[in-house]
Amino acid sequence: MELKIPHSNKKRVVIIGGGFGGIEVAKRLKDLDIQTILLDKHNYHTFQPLLYQVATGGLEPGSIAYPLRKFMQQIPNGIFRYAEVLSIQAEKNQIHTNIGELSYDFLIIATGSTTNFFNLPKETSSKMMQMKDIPQALDIRSFIIENYENALLLDDVSKKQSLLNIAIVGGGPTGVELAGAIGEMKKKILPKDYPELDFRKMEIHIFDATDRMLNTFSERSSKRASDYLKDFDVNVWVNTLVTDFDGEKVYLNNGKTIEAQTLIWAAGVKGMPIEGLPAENIVGGNRIAVDEYCKVKGFENIFAIGDVASMAQENFPKGHPMVAPVAIQQGTLVAKNIIATLKNKAPKPFKYVDKGSMATVGRNRAVMESKGIKLGGFFAWVAWLIVHIITLIGFRNKLTVVMGWLYNYITYDRTLRLIIRPSKRKESEQKL
Amino acid sequence: MELKIPHSNKKRVVIIGGGFGGIEVAKRLKDLDIQTILLDKHNYHTFQPLLYQVATGGLEPGSIAYPLRKFMQQIPNGIFRYAEVLSIQAEKNQIHTNIGELSYDFLIIATGSTTNFFNLPKETSSKMMQMKDIPQALDIRSFIIENYENALLLDDVSKKQSLLNIAIVGGGPTGVELAGAIGEMKKKILPKDYPELDFRKMEIHIFDATDRMLNTFSERSSKRASDYLKDFDVNVWVNTLVTDFDGEKVYLNNGKTIEAQTLIWAAGVKGMPIEGLPAENIVGGNRIAVDEYCKVKGFENIFAIGDVASMAQENFPKGHPMVAPVAIQQGTLVAKNIIATLKNKAPKPFKYVDKGSMATVGRNRAVMESKGIKLGGFFAWVAWLIVHIITLIGFRNKLTVVMGWLYNYITYDRTLRLIIRPSKRKESEQKL
Repeated sequence: MELKIPHSNKKRVVIIGGGFGGIEVAKRLKDLDIQTILLDKHNYHTFQPLLYQVATGGLEPGSIAYPLRKFMQQIPNGIFRYAEVLSIQAEKNQIHTNIGELSYDFLIIATGSTTNFFNLPKETSSKMMQMKDIPQALDIRSFIIENYENALLLDDVSKKQSLLNIAIVGGGPTGVELAGAIGEMKKKILPKDYPELDFRKMEIHIFDATDRMLNTFSERSSKRASDYLKDFDVNVWVNTLVTDFDGEKVYLNNGKTIEAQTLIWAAGVKGMPIEGLPAENIVGGNRIAVDEYCKVKGFENIFAIGDVASMAQENFPKGHPMVAPVAIQQGTLVAKNIIATLKNKAPKPFKYVDKGSMATVGRNRAVMESKGIKLGGFFAWVAWLIVHIITLIGFRNKLTVVMGWLYNYITYDRTLRLIIRPSKRKESEQKL
Repeated sequence: MELKIPHSNKKRVVIIGGGFGGIEVAKRLKDLDIQTILLDKHNYHTFQPLLYQVATGGLEPGSIAYPLRKFMQQIPNGIFRYAEVLSIQAEKNQIHTNIGELSYDFLIIATGSTTNFFNLPKETSSKMMQMKDIPQALDIRSFIIENYENALLLDDVSKKQSLLNIAIVGGGPTGVELAGAIGEMKKKILPKDYPELDFRKMEIHIFDATDRMLNTFSERSSKRASDYLKDFDVNVWVNTLVTDFDGEKVYLNNGKTIEAQTLIWAAGVKGMPIEGLPAENIVGGNRIAVDEYCKVKGFENIFAIGDVASMAQENFPKGHPMVAPVAIQQGTLVAKNIIATLKNKAPKPFKYVDKGSMATVGRNRAVMESKGIKLGGFFAWVAWLIVHIITLIGFRNKLTVVMGWLYNYITYDRTLRLIIRPSKRKESEQKL
């Protein structure tokens, strides 16, 4: 069955994924006399850098999600379809989705990444929490609160401890920011909500396999981040691997065991390539090998950008970091190169402009590195706030995030401590 | 197993339900030398009057939900338990919950109401949407948006029409406000989101079994509400009963059939009494019969308030209306009477002070009646806004609702058009 799209004789660009990369391509192509089709399995764009604040009750999902149909209102040549792409049939210039087949002239794979559990068996990883999309972040929120509700019903000291404790695997920006936010909750919010529980006993653990937190940052920033975490009573473990987890105990490679029912896995991501590409195109980290034009090797009209793309370049032999700026810059490049191609001009190669990186650890603290400058503390934190507000999409989202932060900052509170579980109605009961 | 509660020799008041009535009782008893225990199956209070705005994407759930643990921070003698009450063993002054047994000196049943499908068979009612709590409101939001996503994939005119149309059963304030909000979406938002669909063809139907909308209001207000609805292209059906629904077609008692996959049942509510009370205590509307002190007949220390209580009084032979002001006033009375009883003073009987009623229909329009005054149009709408903001609990909720409304009003937009479904993780996987 063919996916129903308004008929057009124009060239068709199909973009798979409405993340940072995908929407950048659509934006850059909007004045062209083509048909741009954006597909996503969610009907909204997710501002992933703030997912941890949804997970910790600081922000509502609606503040970091932006409806893709609202985005498409700015794209006169664009069409959105709420669809999951199942496979590519490159020989027919066609993709197969859950709602039908769709042909393309140019295909941009911007599917992003998913949690990488590496070699953990499924029965182990299924007991862990992930934080790659909004439903997962809401799940973490509900799970942690339910654990505290359950903890105060118990006398068993060990079980109680395992409900209080939170373990985070992975000392990258996601893990560090999450640990800081949980540290803040431990200090300022949870003791007020649960006067019957002794939160001095609550332990927050963060594990990293390398010898420091934020190992992609400078050593100085790593040291700062560790210090900030320790100020929030977070136990920082380096050179530490989680070898097993049974839902109550976390087993470490150093022989130690930590009691914790909540284990959030932020130790890595892997690309989400689409079925149908030749196996030799998939390289390390489950990413799609692309050339310096983001072109998938062996194909003239298929591009991959962002997390799912791996472009081996100088300084980046294993591909660029899986962060939003790379996706945006590659999206820009691919759009410009498609425009060039349509005008029979030569495409330009990708050159990554690293504007720096930042991570915040609780209120008033952050680390930031940009072009050799290394900042920490309050100024870095203010910079972090500003950069995130600027990059958020949509005026209402900017506004609600600013208001939410202001409120949380002044009151030392995070009011969104809601256990909202789905109603019993099953997903997509209605059928076509 | 006994529910774990900090030991105390003080008198214990147990309140079942953290709605308008339940929290009023807790607030009024907060300075007493007793132990107050509040139980709720949600960990938040829901501001039900604005649920329809969550369902139509105007507000986030966090704006109308207030964490009960945060509320309990103001109640020094109070303890909250996240629990579902299963039955009462009145002879032992004890209740049975999903987390253990709990004894009481005074019991206040403030469990509220649930959707009343009357005699509809379960296989019919299960195809309808309800709107009595936040998960259900979010479900309506996702269901409607998914229907539009599906509609644009279809050629079949009849199926397409059934996906576009929305039927609301029940012309009370809930149904009328919901119909108005959907009417606004039809005019201002949906055509921009779905340029491929012809929303002039979308039909909104509202059915009421009586001869007018808002039949508890004056005829003048009913007429106004109907006119406002018609301005939004809502088809107003009076003296009309829904006899059947198969998920695609709505069958009416006048022999007509309406094509609609979305049917929202707002035609009635019924009390949610608790198992274990004698059958003769349960009267019309599945409510608990109480005397003029809100005392459950036959018991000296069990009270019922709000939607679940039925007090036959002058002007109210079948009990008071199932609205927030009754619950709040009965909560106040019961708290005062408990205080009187503890001081060996005589309790006072209930006297309902009707401050009036109001309903809004889209932007700039509302009807309002108070002490003989009947207002309509813009002033009633402003009054409606103010009353709802004042009665919302929590500064942050007031703030986010005001900001949200301001944004929606200025932009003619509702940005929360997000299909957020739960992640695959099952509810409460962790066990004690």
